[in-house]
Amino acid sequence: MYGVKKVLGIEGGYKGFYSRNTVPLSPKVVNDIHKRGGTILGTSRGGHDTAKIVDSIQDRGINQVYIIGGDGTQKGASFIFEEIKKRGLKVAVAGIPKTIDNDISVIDKSFGFDTAVEEAQRAINAAHVEAESGENGIGVVKVMGRYSGFIAMYATLASRDVDCCLIPESPFYLEGHGGLFEFIEKRLKENGHMVIVIAEGAGQELLVESRHGTENKDASGNKLLRDIGLWLSQKIKDHFTKRKMLINLKYIDPTYMIRAVPSNASDNVYCTLLAQSAIHGAMAGYTGFTVGLVNGRHSYIPFHRITEKQNKVVITDRMWARLLSSTNQPSFLSAKDVVEDKKEEEASSQLLSNGDSANNLVKKEIVYE
Amino acid sequence: MYGVKKVLGIEGGYKGFYSRNTVPLSPKVVNDIHKRGGTILGTSRGGHDTAKIVDSIQDRGINQVYIIGGDGTQKGASFIFEEIKKRGLKVAVAGIPKTIDNDISVIDKSFGFDTAVEEAQRAINAAHVEAESGENGIGVVKVMGRYSGFIAMYATLASRDVDCCLIPESPFYLEGHGGLFEFIEKRLKENGHMVIVIAEGAGQELLVESRHGTENKDASGNKLLRDIGLWLSQKIKDHFTKRKMLINLKYIDPTYMIRAVPSNASDNVYCTLLAQSAIHGAMAGYTGFTVGLVNGRHSYIPFHRITEKQNKVVITDRMWARLLSSTNQPSFLSAKDVVEDKKEEEASSQLLSNGDSANNLVKKEIVYE
Amino acid sequence: MYGVKKVLGIEGGYKGFYSRNTVPLSPKVVNDIHKRGGTILGTSRGGHDTAKIVDSIQDRGINQVYIIGGDGTQKGASFIFEEIKKRGLKVAVAGIPKTIDNDISVIDKSFGFDTAVEEAQRAINAAHVEAESGENGIGVVKVMGRYSGFIAMYATLASRDVDCCLIPESPFYLEGHGGLFEFIEKRLKENGHMVIVIAEGAGQELLVESRHGTENKDASGNKLLRDIGLWLSQKIKDHFTKRKMLINLKYIDPTYMIRAVPSNASDNVYCTLLAQSAIHGAMAGYTGFTVGLVNGRHSYIPFHRITEKQNKVVITDRMWARLLSSTNQPSFLSAKDVVEDKKEEEASSQLLSNGDSANNLVKKEIVYE
Amino acid sequence: MYGVKKVLGIEGGYKGFYSRNTVPLSPKVVNDIHKRGGTILGTSRGGHDTAKIVDSIQDRGINQVYIIGGDGTQKGASFIFEEIKKRGLKVAVAGIPKTIDNDISVIDKSFGFDTAVEEAQRAINAAHVEAESGENGIGVVKVMGRYSGFIAMYATLASRDVDCCLIPESPFYLEGHGGLFEFIEKRLKENGHMVIVIAEGAGQELLVESRHGTENKDASGNKLLRDIGLWLSQKIKDHFTKRKMLINLKYIDPTYMIRAVPSNASDNVYCTLLAQSAIHGAMAGYTGFTVGLVNGRHSYIPFHRITEKQNKVVITDRMWARLLSSTNQPSFLSAKDVVEDKKEEEASSQLLSNGDSANNLVKKEIVYE
Repeated sequence: MYGVKKVLGIEGGYKGFYSRNTVPLSPKVVNDIHKRGGTILGTSRGGHDTAKIVDSIQDRGINQVYIIGGDGTQKGASFIFEEIKKRGLKVAVAGIPKTIDNDISVIDKSFGFDTAVEEAQRAINAAHVEAESGENGIGVVKVMGRYSGFIAMYATLASRDVDCCLIPESPFYLEGHGGLFEFIEKRLKENGHMVIVIAEGAGQELLVESRHGTENKDASGNKLLRDIGLWLSQKIKDHFTKRKMLINLKYIDPTYMIRAVPSNASDNVYCTLLAQSAIHGAMAGYTGFTVGLVNGRHSYIPFHRITEKQNKVVITDRMWARLLSSTNQPSFLSAKDVVEDKKEEEASSQLLSNGDSANNLVKKEIVYE
Repeated sequence: MYGVKKVLGIEGGYKGFYSRNTVPLSPKVVNDIHKRGGTILGTSRGGHDTAKIVDSIQDRGINQVYIIGGDGTQKGASFIFEEIKKRGLKVAVAGIPKTIDNDISVIDKSFGFDTAVEEAQRAINAAHVEAESGENGIGVVKVMGRYSGFIAMYATLASRDVDCCLIPESPFYLEGHGGLFEFIEKRLKENGHMVIVIAEGAGQELLVESRHGTENKDASGNKLLRDIGLWLSQKIKDHFTKRKMLINLKYIDPTYMIRAVPSNASDNVYCTLLAQSAIHGAMAGYTGFTVGLVNGRHSYIPFHRITEKQNKVVITDRMWARLLSSTNQPSFLSAKDVVEDKKEEEASSQLLSNGDSANNLVKKEIVYE
Repeated sequence: MYGVKKVLGIEGGYKGFYSRNTVPLSPKVVNDIHKRGGTILGTSRGGHDTAKIVDSIQDRGINQVYIIGGDGTQKGASFIFEEIKKRGLKVAVAGIPKTIDNDISVIDKSFGFDTAVEEAQRAINAAHVEAESGENGIGVVKVMGRYSGFIAMYATLASRDVDCCLIPESPFYLEGHGGLFEFIEKRLKENGHMVIVIAEGAGQELLVESRHGTENKDASGNKLLRDIGLWLSQKIKDHFTKRKMLINLKYIDPTYMIRAVPSNASDNVYCTLLAQSAIHGAMAGYTGFTVGLVNGRHSYIPFHRITEKQNKVVITDRMWARLLSSTNQPSFLSAKDVVEDKKEEEASSQLLSNGDSANNLVKKEIVYE
Repeated sequence: MYGVKKVLGIEGGYKGFYSRNTVPLSPKVVNDIHKRGGTILGTSRGGHDTAKIVDSIQDRGINQVYIIGGDGTQKGASFIFEEIKKRGLKVAVAGIPKTIDNDISVIDKSFGFDTAVEEAQRAINAAHVEAESGENGIGVVKVMGRYSGFIAMYATLASRDVDCCLIPESPFYLEGHGGLFEFIEKRLKENGHMVIVIAEGAGQELLVESRHGTENKDASGNKLLRDIGLWLSQKIKDHFTKRKMLINLKYIDPTYMIRAVPSNASDNVYCTLLAQSAIHGAMAGYTGFTVGLVNGRHSYIPFHRITEKQNKVVITDRMWARLLSSTNQPSFLSAKDVVEDKKEEEASSQLLSNGDSANNLVKKEIVYE
């Protein structure tokens, strides 16, 4: 529609800018890629040299750069945008929010999140079936979410079979009154089985603690223990061995099966709209923005607003309360925590009541499509 | 949480209120129903006698009535609410928007819609595979949507394989310049195959016209012809027979396969939240409302706002423009139409610019949860 | 492994031999095709000119011809083989049995059949959900099977939700004692809902009869009526209208959705083994054979044995008896039929007891891999 | 059909015979269970006291015992049968072969195997997508198969994306010429990515060896290390760290997701037929048999034939050769192995040529249905 003649794909993430090769993204090449999982462009980690990347953009005569990825990728995009501005180049930079973790702030959701929740629900169903089949069956499912528990929270709300959902934003403890072990025992006595969903970033402070107490510090051992799902499963087994209570624990780690599936219809639609929105924005002269739904409207959000904080589950918010009332799990809050939370909540309510929450402030800078 | 002791299910729609039987909805009964398609309560059409229904509610001593369904069902709920108000009963009435057609106005989407789009996309994929396999292959897929083309529109945006999407809101014609036949011929010459998605309510005016011209007025014949998908498929075949051009047309009607699948994760989450929202609302003393997402926020919408009009695809809106730019199909608008549309669009823009569109007016009455 | 340098694909069935174009089937081209439905080679119907085809094989210097398809395709392969033999060419011809209808005789099953049954079961599930949801709900599902009812029979055995399975091999009647209408009424009274599966070739003699009685002989009208599923659905509706009994009939035709899905794991394995078997056979010097499982063993079957009859459900065999005992449907046999069947069965038992059934005779010519 | 009035389900495996509770298996209870994964009867391990079980059978007045399970369960069934014979009770005992591992000998396949292969293929697809997306991507998938590699072998043949399949029956080694590391390096250089499928019982001798070399003998550490998939993944990472070659290894363990899915259509049909076969057999007066397909025919096999050995992949057989020619993986055989294998193969060929292989001997005792 805009008469663009050449679209290049950069392979293997930011590092790909240093390489000579690019992938021509002609209609024929991209024709079927939305029906497959993964990426034809490849991925990599780390290695973001802003100056070198902008050199490469200049050398190749690129006019518009569309950068697809999560929280970290958007930060990288904002550095590129600043460098381009500094050099006074006529190159638009637009970010497209794609991450199954949903850890990008301001926007309603990132591309890929719905699909991840759908697939996580499959794993939870399997855990439920396994838990129901054995005596005192416990299904433990670890899902992605290094810093934020969105997949865990939504998959729990979707499946309705989860008895306990553990996320990085809500610390928990194992032993004693109000702890996880007590809750597990209670549920097994009531129902004979239970399902626990844990985000990979949950309970990391317990892991650190636990490692200090043990002698096992060899490379491979430690690496295994760093997996919170394996660690928690072992802790639960140890606890019930001590309590002389027979349990049947089944651990499921669907991480890469979740990540590899083709996107579902809802994500396909969202992706189509994000792409159109990004292109119309760049063609209209905007730059330095990420596209995304904000309160249901397609918007252009300045990079600095997107990158100033990570999206996290707010455990004093309604959505987490909905989850708690759906699972009836303990809140793992001590009396002291509750007081502090109340204060925070009040502060937050005041902000909301005068219509000027942090989020709203951000939104004043948003351009609606 | 609220100490409710008894939850009754009314079987077979509004008619069920007249019957003596109800289904006890204990946790055990409803435990697994979200994993199956269909309804354990059954459905029926028509037969809404408001007075009798409210008699039944009174006789049974029901305090809260939750009514689940689409546009028509919500209208029925509003009559019940009015009658209850007239009689001065202390009975809360809440509507829960469930329809795969997405034809309920004000709210962002109804429960079931996402799942329907997902499943419709499977049918479109099949049509695409079939179309690609034969010489001049044409896949025709009919999806639900008696008065609104949302499933057709979103499934088209999701699948990216659709060449033409026909909906009730956008009239089309077959013959002549700018008509459907011309477009089909063009696409077959370019690509060798094509996919057409048609909502069941599209092109009904053509059907009526066509039936006047024919002698076949017998019961069975007419009924068959009333299916727009079958009718259009036959018309296309006839046209290309006349043009002596070999085509391979495959017609897919996934209607009941779409309707019968269990809901997907995104709809499961939405359903959980709608249910919680409705109960909190009724328990807080609200009545006469439908719950739903409005601009991404869970809200209580007065029945009269929900029922005053049906949700339809606005073909001068951005979303339909996005679809047109994605399929490159003709707009089927004559020059005269365009002028009229422009006017309407301008009027609509003015409303939006002064922040007082019809939708916004409605929203002033909405209570956010 | 055999050092083959060039593999050509012929496009669009037998007609493709006359065309100049071929598709190079390099590892890169075929890398992902088993994950998609349909065919990259395309299909067509009719137009088999044996002499021209063999001319083309000669001209192109082809040494081995692998022909993939169902009953009709295998017949075509045998003509090509005869012509090649007549001309004394050194060209091997091998058939690969691919048809969802499973209508190829001698072999245990054809490639694609398992996948078709899996997908047909999805449609039956949908019909069951729909039937359960409405009062006197009837789900009617039409599946492929022009001359043989294998998909209908196996999908019925797989789903366990089918009350009546109608196939071409077992004639049925609608009216009167022991007829379909009587059975439907009985089931609706017992269970409140029912599911009927009908193969597309079933009841064609009823259709012919019915058409003689009506005046509608126009092209389009007739074509619509020839669909046994639509016809039967209308007949059932008419019957219960006359009987003044409310029913809710939902008709599902999953034909092209079944045909277009990618093959399942079991068919993928079978396909791999058929391909290896065919190549080893041709490389070992065999020609004029179809590969396939016979009593669980990979075998080479001479074309003339494969093509001398079509594979059909034998309704006096165990498998159909198993279906009848699973659905409890009427046998639709008059007293006279039963006597004749008994005789046939006895004859068949004698053959089996002396180990010389028609099937066994065939097998004497089979070379096991 | 046989007028049976009462069917009891024993909960939690053989131990369930000691408990007072049984589950009534009425048509209503079992109506939908084939659409769910898992078991409504529950499972347990160990604890088979034959005398107590037969006491329980006598006390309850049970006439027919149908025992569903894998290799170990069938052995238990044969003990019960012997004890019943010794006591002279009129109780029929029939085994139904259900195990996703396919480790029951004599029969063509066990119920559940097809479904497991289907689901394993999904995990392999995910591994392939992940491997393709990263630089030097390696996907490692562990599937079930403690003593036999059938799931691994068939899922490999089905998916066509596997570069190396490791099973218990075919020992392998990591280091040196012809070892796994060498092969991985070669594949990564050729294709840039690869997929390894490993059965849980493969390479256990390497694990034992490896554990002797390490000091970590604590309970939890050992248990983690016993997982061959985690162990192999770590070994590969360590190797390429030493070689200073960057790899991206993703490990997928779909074990419980495979086990928990509802059975597919092909297994549903097989299950229906096994059930009918078992009941007809017991009703006809047979006892002490397992039902199953043998060379494509439904058969009754004496327990002692079923239990005398476990079903294993024969690596000198055609099926494993087909796999090797499909993956092109190394055979991991030293020169000495090859000679020994040849001898075994010759011996086996002789048996086959005079039609008297071990398998055939067994089959003389089989009663065909």
